Amino acid sequence: MSRWEPNARGRLEQAAMALYAECGFEQTTVAEIAARAGLTERTFFRHFADKREVLFYGAPALQELVVSTVASAPDTAAPIDAVAAAVQAAAALLQERRDGARLRQAIIAANPELQERELIKLANLASALAGALRERGVSEPAASLTAEAGVAVFRNAFARWIGDPGEQDFPRLIRESLDALKAVTGGT
Amino acid sequence: MSRWEPNARGRLEQAAMALYAECGFEQTTVAEIAARAGLTERTFFRHFADKREVLFYGAPALQELVVSTVASAPDTAAPIDAVAAAVQAAAALLQERRDGARLRQAIIAANPELQERELIKLANLASALAGALRERGVSEPAASLTAEAGVAVFRNAFARWIGDPGEQDFPRLIRESLDALKAVTGGT
Repeated sequence: MSRWEPNARGRLEQAAMALYAECGFEQTTVAEIAARAGLTERTFFRHFADKREVLFYGAPALQELVVSTVASAPDTAAPIDAVAAAVQAAAALLQERRDGARLRQAIIAANPELQERELIKLANLASALAGALRERGVSEPAASLTAEAGVAVFRNAFARWIGDPGEQDFPRLIRESLDALKAVTGGT
Repeated sequence: MSRWEPNARGRLEQAAMALYAECGFEQTTVAEIAARAGLTERTFFRHFADKREVLFYGAPALQELVVSTVASAPDTAAPIDAVAAAVQAAAALLQERRDGARLRQAIIAANPELQERELIKLANLASALAGALRERGVSEPAASLTAEAGVAVFRNAFARWIGDPGEQDFPRLIRESLDALKAVTGGT
């Protein structure tokens, strides 16, 4: 934010994540986060509205990526394929931050309030995806159901990606989960 | 709960729902609910832990119905069909209480805290459904994805059932939403 605070946001985020993991989200104070980052509380509040926002500030960018990927899919793409491409783009982005994503997930899993927030984030993502599909001319209920299917596939693949200690390819897990969903709903 | 308070629970529920709808959930106090029902606060707390529980006390029974329907599906039933039967059983139950369900939904839609609670309820329902499928020998990720698909279909049909002022058949809307999901994921 200024030349006296190089990468303040990144330092605050790193300090916050470490403290949430070590001491718990509830127990950690903004004063402790700022101290660990070698910055002031005032600087913290220039970058984040509150403790929780450290964990969720990336959500709008992720949603924007997903929506724009749907919007830019070829006209000929089936809705489910446009959505699959969108959640794969999100997966590729998260793939670059695997350790951070795993740590964040562990912090959220330990706190009911954060779990609620995460569920809302995913519900908002599904709504935005459905809106992007309607923009492409997909009617209801197909638009909402395709969006829900995409988010279900994303969550399922995410849980497997986070849960498996071996090096794993998140976008490939998305394809696998989508194939599994097609198989279970295929009525074959 | 005693012969001096016939149907206290039902009277409290009815009073609470009316006040939530008229004045808003946040603005309504337990004292007001009890007064409107002609009962005491003490009696309210014998039946409900707090204001919110009036809106959610039915969730465990609904979940139990859904899980037991999956468990009792024929061995030959495909997982998606067992889940479809389960959410249709839930739909048939709600169908009998349409006005109450619509009022409840309007109250929840007006309050972010209640929306969070509703999302958690549905996430728990999906987890319970996935568990019931694993009990039937369905492996992961198919069990979780089938459960998520079932809940997505339920939510989608519920929104259409609540949103349409005309008399509608909720279990039929479930079938329609399931068919739409199959069509969008069919890869055809």
